[in-house]
Amino acid sequence: MNSYSYPPLSSEVRFLLPIHYLAWADDVLTPTEAEQIRTIIGRQTWISEEDQIWLAPHLDPASPPEAMEIKSWLQMIRRQSSQLSSEEKYQLLSLSRNLSSLGEGPDSQELAALKQIEKALTGSLQTEEALKEALSPKADPSPEAPTESASFSPSTLRKLLEGPQLEVKENVFRLLSDPAFSYQRIPEKSSDYRELVLEWLQHLADRGLGALSYPPEVNGAGNMREYIAVFEAMGHHDISLLVKFGVQFGLFGGAILNLGTREHHQRYLPDTGSLALPGCFAMTEANHGSNVRGLETTATYQPESDTFLIQTPHDQAFKEYIGNAAAHAKMAVVFAQLYTEEECFGVHAFLVPIRDESGKAMPGVTIGDSGHKLGLNGVDNGRLWFNQVSVPRENLLDRFGQIHRDGSYHSDIASESARFFTMLGTLVGGRICVPMGGLSAARSGLAIAIRYAHHRRQFGKPGEPEIPIMDYPSHQMRLMPLLADSIVLEVVQRILADRYCQELPEGEISRELESLAAGVKAVSTWHTTTTLQECREACGGNGFLSINRLGNLKSDTDIFTTFEGDNTVLLQLVARGRLTTFQKSFGKMGIGGMVNWAGQEAWRVMSEMNPLITRNTDSKHLLDAEFHQAAFRYQEERLVWTAGQRIRRRIAEGVSPADAFVEIQNHLLLMAKAYVRRVLLEEYQSWLSSITESAEKEILTKIGQLFALNALRKESGWFLEQDYFQGTKSKAITRLVEELAAEVSKESLGLVSSWAIPDTLLYAPIQQEPES
Amino acid sequence: MNSYSYPPLSSEVRFLLPIHYLAWADDVLTPTEAEQIRTIIGRQTWISEEDQIWLAPHLDPASPPEAMEIKSWLQMIRRQSSQLSSEEKYQLLSLSRNLSSLGEGPDSQELAALKQIEKALTGSLQTEEALKEALSPKADPSPEAPTESASFSPSTLRKLLEGPQLEVKENVFRLLSDPAFSYQRIPEKSSDYRELVLEWLQHLADRGLGALSYPPEVNGAGNMREYIAVFEAMGHHDISLLVKFGVQFGLFGGAILNLGTREHHQRYLPDTGSLALPGCFAMTEANHGSNVRGLETTATYQPESDTFLIQTPHDQAFKEYIGNAAAHAKMAVVFAQLYTEEECFGVHAFLVPIRDESGKAMPGVTIGDSGHKLGLNGVDNGRLWFNQVSVPRENLLDRFGQIHRDGSYHSDIASESARFFTMLGTLVGGRICVPMGGLSAARSGLAIAIRYAHHRRQFGKPGEPEIPIMDYPSHQMRLMPLLADSIVLEVVQRILADRYCQELPEGEISRELESLAAGVKAVSTWHTTTTLQECREACGGNGFLSINRLGNLKSDTDIFTTFEGDNTVLLQLVARGRLTTFQKSFGKMGIGGMVNWAGQEAWRVMSEMNPLITRNTDSKHLLDAEFHQAAFRYQEERLVWTAGQRIRRRIAEGVSPADAFVEIQNHLLLMAKAYVRRVLLEEYQSWLSSITESAEKEILTKIGQLFALNALRKESGWFLEQDYFQGTKSKAITRLVEELAAEVSKESLGLVSSWAIPDTLLYAPIQQEPES
Repeated sequence: MNSYSYPPLSSEVRFLLPIHYLAWADDVLTPTEAEQIRTIIGRQTWISEEDQIWLAPHLDPASPPEAMEIKSWLQMIRRQSSQLSSEEKYQLLSLSRNLSSLGEGPDSQELAALKQIEKALTGSLQTEEALKEALSPKADPSPEAPTESASFSPSTLRKLLEGPQLEVKENVFRLLSDPAFSYQRIPEKSSDYRELVLEWLQHLADRGLGALSYPPEVNGAGNMREYIAVFEAMGHHDISLLVKFGVQFGLFGGAILNLGTREHHQRYLPDTGSLALPGCFAMTEANHGSNVRGLETTATYQPESDTFLIQTPHDQAFKEYIGNAAAHAKMAVVFAQLYTEEECFGVHAFLVPIRDESGKAMPGVTIGDSGHKLGLNGVDNGRLWFNQVSVPRENLLDRFGQIHRDGSYHSDIASESARFFTMLGTLVGGRICVPMGGLSAARSGLAIAIRYAHHRRQFGKPGEPEIPIMDYPSHQMRLMPLLADSIVLEVVQRILADRYCQELPEGEISRELESLAAGVKAVSTWHTTTTLQECREACGGNGFLSINRLGNLKSDTDIFTTFEGDNTVLLQLVARGRLTTFQKSFGKMGIGGMVNWAGQEAWRVMSEMNPLITRNTDSKHLLDAEFHQAAFRYQEERLVWTAGQRIRRRIAEGVSPADAFVEIQNHLLLMAKAYVRRVLLEEYQSWLSSITESAEKEILTKIGQLFALNALRKESGWFLEQDYFQGTKSKAITRLVEELAAEVSKESLGLVSSWAIPDTLLYAPIQQEPES
Repeated sequence: MNSYSYPPLSSEVRFLLPIHYLAWADDVLTPTEAEQIRTIIGRQTWISEEDQIWLAPHLDPASPPEAMEIKSWLQMIRRQSSQLSSEEKYQLLSLSRNLSSLGEGPDSQELAALKQIEKALTGSLQTEEALKEALSPKADPSPEAPTESASFSPSTLRKLLEGPQLEVKENVFRLLSDPAFSYQRIPEKSSDYRELVLEWLQHLADRGLGALSYPPEVNGAGNMREYIAVFEAMGHHDISLLVKFGVQFGLFGGAILNLGTREHHQRYLPDTGSLALPGCFAMTEANHGSNVRGLETTATYQPESDTFLIQTPHDQAFKEYIGNAAAHAKMAVVFAQLYTEEECFGVHAFLVPIRDESGKAMPGVTIGDSGHKLGLNGVDNGRLWFNQVSVPRENLLDRFGQIHRDGSYHSDIASESARFFTMLGTLVGGRICVPMGGLSAARSGLAIAIRYAHHRRQFGKPGEPEIPIMDYPSHQMRLMPLLADSIVLEVVQRILADRYCQELPEGEISRELESLAAGVKAVSTWHTTTTLQECREACGGNGFLSINRLGNLKSDTDIFTTFEGDNTVLLQLVARGRLTTFQKSFGKMGIGGMVNWAGQEAWRVMSEMNPLITRNTDSKHLLDAEFHQAAFRYQEERLVWTAGQRIRRRIAEGVSPADAFVEIQNHLLLMAKAYVRRVLLEEYQSWLSSITESAEKEILTKIGQLFALNALRKESGWFLEQDYFQGTKSKAITRLVEELAAEVSKESLGLVSSWAIPDTLLYAPIQQEPES
């Protein structure tokens, strides 16, 4: 392993090595730290120019030293440490002095520099503690004692929930806790805010976070799962930065990665990942938001010049809401109808330069500004018009469809429709990421509201202290079901992300995962909107003050229900997909199988709908995972079945299939939601069954029960209509939900502390108006 | 009548009289118009200084000429007009020339001035048309032809809905459509925005709108109903202005009016109404938002100096979120615990100067800024601390409790609790106004979203034009029930406002109205939040752009669910009130009466719950107003009954009444909502029965049906639990709601156009970032 060799280091550099190691050891040297250390070192006249040259790049967060190099430092330090007395072995000064050949008493200049650097790193590390940890043999950290208010260990729970991505996320939290990322810097003026977000984005790019998912040969880390974890962690910080990050690295870079070929990757991805090439993703048009297939921009191949001509056919066909377009992007991935040899081959993606190096719009490109928005004003959303803009043939991202020099079109996928959906399918990463980022915002909101509810007291008996508002049943019902839903979504979305990252290298994402991602995106982003609204109200006037962040979290994530696919449109697609799946499985069965299935189905439902069960109000039964599963499955299957019947009936009456689908739209929406709910429950229960830690399993079980029963409570009208419940059972469910909400409220501080969101990210001290 | 006499006018003034009349005739000379005309006249050397002095005040929107004076002008003009030929009688120039003694051919200077003034007024009037209307005998305007898309006349509907306040509101709309009130002027920086809103507020004060509700002897108009109509109209414009208007004239002025006596009125209300005395309403404290009775600021009477000492007892007891406090208020109405002779007499209100003439904080007063907020950043919310601040005894607003010179306390209301509720009761005006202003914002949102839905097309069959999104059943279900709820709330809130204004002069607001106002405030402001969220999403990305206003409407009204009483807290008070009312009526009946009532009740419910009814899915039955009433009444009464039972059972088990109420909180919330719903339905139906215009009655009936059935659909779980419905009936209700939503969607453009909100108020063209 240790086959790397590095040039010998001067005694001055060796003097600084322990502190240098500490700065990098946890893999996060924040921009502010690096800047401060650079300044201090730059001032040291005792460090030779040559050593300065060695030190400078080693303090650049943009190019961290390789792990092997850091390891080699550690070995040097360890060796030295082992020769020191137990008093000295973890002392920074002793180590530095002994590593260097600077003699016994260090020069006061060197000592002063060391102290300054130590101070610059203060807060992020306690030197002696940090050295002890770095130099001692590793042991598992002792399990945290249960906090006063929780029956379980929040840190154990955190590890269970976060899995292998915990470390990545903690590093992101540390980075974002740096003063450079302070919310205090956010200005009121949008134009200034946009520049700040660009500066932040550059810090992230410098740390290699943007290129995480790109292949190693283009300076990436080839790790999509870590990229997603970074995105999830960033959801706890400013949402404009999150969105700009997603636009640059996920949408723009993702389109090049997934729709382009090796040549495109090599030419563009290194600069995309480093932000040397700021880009945008120009899909949406003013007249075509949801209906991407209907967009009107054209790209016509011109064999005489071997170029495509990109054209906005009329004024209203402009690209709209394009993130990064109004101010910063130099290049756009433009989605346009590909025309060649006078034939249209459907929507394809093209790389189109939109600004020159000086930032001026390219000839033929008109750039507008989408203007002020409800939220996300740190993102420069813009408009693009193309008039006779010419780009070379190789700017077609041609993984799924190619144009030859003679103008002929080639694709391995024969049908235009299949091609379109295959292309869009590769972009499903956005639908995985967006709800995760949104859910992080919702969890920030819940952490704020729940901590507030334990702290804030209002009303009470005369002569007694007021009561914490968390103790009021109405407040428990406001927040606890949302907390349970958040934890279930958190677990299942991570499972989905794992599955996506497993399927990704195989080249194609399964239809099932695609459909599930779309459904979960819709359910989860609506959950985020609802949760943040409830949290705002639950904090009263305090929830309205920007310092408590609920306002911004709410306004910034509001558009999540619309972008990456409007939720209502997505759920209809999901429903259609489910119907097709069911139809296919019936098809395979043949008539006999179908009758058989219907018989079994009828029998199963009959047994579930036995009066002993429909009236059963026993808590043991109501809390039982199998009861929840059966009910959720019943609702989903019943809605699929009746949807099929309704469509068949309409078609038999002469209604066109397209109209029939439109007519039963509301039914389809219910069905898609029931499908997502059922999957959420099953995935969560299956994950839960793998947990062995008993105290944590107990609270997670309660969370699952609250999620399931609260869903049944909200759907009780439907279940009662079907006679699947009797009224007594429905009432018992409501009672039980209230009881569970009360129980979970007692553990709620522990639950939100398992999320480990640093206070620096939760609250936003902002500039106050001057006092009068 | 015409007993006023005015000094004779010079020929120059008479020359300008017709245009002058026109400027004032519709009672709204907007600030911009007045300013332009003043400038033009100021430049005219041919107008003597004396005439300039006459003209100047007659062009001040702050002091409009009296109606009688305007009438005297009209008589002069009419007289002249009648002597002219039919070609000349409505021509401005002829009238001016003939009225003046300026000879035949007017001097070119005069003609030029006239033309300039005419131009300044252009857009707001067409001179010839306007003169014709002013000088011709009045006739009823011909009924408007039904618009293409509506089966009824929007203008007739408007008159029915708005009643006698229509004209007031239209005048407000005209005023707010003036460029001075343009949204384009709203800056991004909060500190600038606050100054703009103050400027706007001054315009409104200058027009006498702030003092509308104050008694005529203090320069008011003594017309609370018009004040409320103005507030309602302003809800369609910028909500920061609405709130600042409410704080200055409604809360600050209202406290002086309702808690003070004649001396306070005479001393403070003229300057309050003119905004010479900007004030604030310092009730809420950081630790006491909802629990006003528990607030901690003290006001201790000092007989030696005949003053009160106002004191913030500790750092966290500061006044918080006080609108107008951070930047502009000179005086505060401070709510504090009154102490005298070492006894506490509970919360009272005191006038406390907080800034001197130069704007500096008064000695002992510390003013802080609540900082940036989710919305309403045009309002300067602030914090106040008082340290040994001394105010004279007469600064106690002492209508309900007085301190004599010797320090003794007197009140006609013996109990502290009764006094507290009586004082707060007089402030119920805020709870009438806030939901009306909020509902206006919601209606603006619906107007935007519905117009968008008719215009925006997305998806469709291949080869055919895309379909307007209003035609999708899912979109109809998103918006139409909210439209119906908005119209029902609109009608009932206006009835409530009428009732409030009837009760007000009698000195005390009935408990029933107070309770109803609180309940409607909660239901209505939640409706506003829900509606604006749905409208934002229903407009997709366009809903997120500030230019379309949904974002600001949403963010600015979000706090309405919290202020003027947190909705959850209010509904609990309402529920307690309802329980008390029921208990009292049982008390009067005696045991016999109660058994009798229970028997009748049982019989009534039995008959409603006859299987023929619980299974009845006939449309005629489902659309029947009596069915709706019976179901709503059943739910309310049943919830009251079971709430009573639950409390009795707990008390029997030894739970304290206070704890019992807390334990059944969620039940109480359901009960309060059911009460408000029932009242909304009954009031609307009773109003509807008075309508005779058949086309309008038809659509209004449909609106009522959609409101009622959609409420039953949303509550179907409860009704099914009670066996009040069978599943088939519940399903039939859902089907019918979808049908009604489809039918109403066809009329929806007509419905929103009946609101007559000018386009200038609906949309907000704002400064765009410069194009790159």
